[in-house]
Amino acid sequence: MQNFFWQNSTAIIFGKDTVKDLAEHLKRDGVKGVLLVYGGKGIFKSGAYTQTTEMLTKAGIKFSEVNDVKPNPRVDKVREGIARVKAGGIDAILPVGGGSVFDSAKAIAAGSCYSGDVWDFFEGKAKIEKALPIYGVLTASASASEVNGFAVISNPECEIKTSINSPFVYPKVSVIDPSFQITLPQKQTVYGGVDIIAHILERVLDGDEGSDLIDEQGYALIRTMMRVIPELIENPKNYDARAEYALAGAMAHCGFLSVGRRVRGDFSSHRMGHSLSMLYGIAHGASLSIVMPAWARYLYEENPVPFARLGEAVFDIYDGTDEEKALDAIEALEDFFKDIKSPTTLREVGIKEEDIEKIAANASRGETFGTLQTLEAEDVLEIFRLAY
Amino acid sequence: MQNFFWQNSTAIIFGKDTVKDLAEHLKRDGVKGVLLVYGGKGIFKSGAYTQTTEMLTKAGIKFSEVNDVKPNPRVDKVREGIARVKAGGIDAILPVGGGSVFDSAKAIAAGSCYSGDVWDFFEGKAKIEKALPIYGVLTASASASEVNGFAVISNPECEIKTSINSPFVYPKVSVIDPSFQITLPQKQTVYGGVDIIAHILERVLDGDEGSDLIDEQGYALIRTMMRVIPELIENPKNYDARAEYALAGAMAHCGFLSVGRRVRGDFSSHRMGHSLSMLYGIAHGASLSIVMPAWARYLYEENPVPFARLGEAVFDIYDGTDEEKALDAIEALEDFFKDIKSPTTLREVGIKEEDIEKIAANASRGETFGTLQTLEAEDVLEIFRLAY
Repeated sequence: MQNFFWQNSTAIIFGKDTVKDLAEHLKRDGVKGVLLVYGGKGIFKSGAYTQTTEMLTKAGIKFSEVNDVKPNPRVDKVREGIARVKAGGIDAILPVGGGSVFDSAKAIAAGSCYSGDVWDFFEGKAKIEKALPIYGVLTASASASEVNGFAVISNPECEIKTSINSPFVYPKVSVIDPSFQITLPQKQTVYGGVDIIAHILERVLDGDEGSDLIDEQGYALIRTMMRVIPELIENPKNYDARAEYALAGAMAHCGFLSVGRRVRGDFSSHRMGHSLSMLYGIAHGASLSIVMPAWARYLYEENPVPFARLGEAVFDIYDGTDEEKALDAIEALEDFFKDIKSPTTLREVGIKEEDIEKIAANASRGETFGTLQTLEAEDVLEIFRLAY
Repeated sequence: MQNFFWQNSTAIIFGKDTVKDLAEHLKRDGVKGVLLVYGGKGIFKSGAYTQTTEMLTKAGIKFSEVNDVKPNPRVDKVREGIARVKAGGIDAILPVGGGSVFDSAKAIAAGSCYSGDVWDFFEGKAKIEKALPIYGVLTASASASEVNGFAVISNPECEIKTSINSPFVYPKVSVIDPSFQITLPQKQTVYGGVDIIAHILERVLDGDEGSDLIDEQGYALIRTMMRVIPELIENPKNYDARAEYALAGAMAHCGFLSVGRRVRGDFSSHRMGHSLSMLYGIAHGASLSIVMPAWARYLYEENPVPFARLGEAVFDIYDGTDEEKALDAIEALEDFFKDIKSPTTLREVGIKEEDIEKIAANASRGETFGTLQTLEAEDVLEIFRLAY
């Protein structure tokens, strides 16, 4: 096991009808005005908007709004939020939504305390050294943005979707009320679930020996996700399944699956998936169920062990060599994605074969990446070909 | 799953040769003088004392010492520490040791900010509202005191060993260097391991439906402990096994196994075990391997389900009714305790049959307790008889 530093001080208020409990935290911290950040109509349907604004009004806290944050959120909306904060009267950011909204809120929180342009952080031109506090209300689990310091933002000008990770943008308090997720479209439950599974796989398949204990925690998280996603397809109102999903989603990417590893995880699939989202607006989860199996098939023969262990722990595959188990595990994973109707090929989402080179170039950007196996430009190209 | 609030902001510095990394935290927080709290000679043998004092000297931080903290630590030593703090020059407490030392440090940290006697907190006469910050160096995993707000202290005057739990006494930073534990006596590794297993069992066997996901995390923790304890008996210098043990120990009782449960766990065994430690100085872990199987045998027939689930997940027991699986699981657990040479009867530790009533009365103290099954005075007596 490798040495590590761990701290995650985000407070979680978890459960039914808990938005109201956020008031005491805001008041205790002396918050007078917040910027409410949200996306589309979902939060009106689920009741999250009403509950949040009523809570604020009752607590005597002023709020202004930035809305219409899109999936694969964009930097122009972040800049709009920063401008609102700089106009005054706001001392905290309050995202109400899923990962896109939380990610935007983080970028706004950091950008509001910086004199330059917020994209500097994403290009590595500047480092976050301060941010407004974030108090969030989660309405869709997937990114675990509610419990971590990551934010993924797209910049259409340069066609790049990329991320920051800073201790300054961990939400101070996150409300996770799983009942808000009952009204989500089925596709979002499926794609969010794929994203959560990817966050776990990107640790247990990163090629680092890390900690057996942490791997076991990861396998248990995957088993839970593979149980509750079909349950939620069957009955979206199953509160307990929603709650397990929301809890697993937060645990998958709060950082604890990275402890003891030499690397924090192998996020190659996320990086390649981002290109599909950036160039074609493919839903994030869908991009992952397309890319991950292709990535796995491309390199499992050289690296069978982590796939074989996954096969044993998650799919009860005990027969054969490690290489055979590995292939069986990859097929079982792909079958699961098919069963829950998440796409597993580029073809299915209407991407043309002649676009593959462009996509691969967008993912590589002249850099190599990956830890289980370092991916050069030609590897990335080959993976996208396999995904076709 | 029940609603819950979660926050654990303790920072963990984990791994080999990491004591030196504590300096930057102390300096950043402006600490000028600390009270070093420790027990016996163990920290000289392991190198923890030298590394800590060198780190402090290099960082220009003054320190005075309170030492000779005993296992099952006592309130008189805590009062000694408080008097030292009140004499001036100390703005943080720095325990170097295991659970007893951390627990004493917490009581000193809270008692130093209180005008009355520290035992008031343990009797429920006063509530902790403030404490000095705690920066700890762990040298023996078991209690998870390094990552939680619990402190268990004994008061010989009234023959009571009892606990506090406060958000104000979570260590600010804990250094967990598993290599310090290589020099521990084998008995301590065994008893610490039993304590860690008990912390997990007290959640998964608390009779609350809680969260399947959390139960699975708990089972994985127990499987890890049952793997590494024998590995460490075989080879105490196995660093990776020490690291998994230390990580599992922290995770078992940092609070996360309690999320989603109606209760925080059923700590009946701890409470009954405390009486054995208080009255006879029985090592804490030994008291648990004596009490837990008896507690389980006493009530599994009425409550077979959690024991049967444990049997499946930890001991691969799949045959029979839930009641049969439950009994097999209890026997397997008891066999494990015997294998690692932790006592499972009162007789083995030299306690006489005629003392049982006195022990039971000390544990009950006119109160009922327990969540899987509420224990009246006569139940407690019967459990201690079974443990004989």
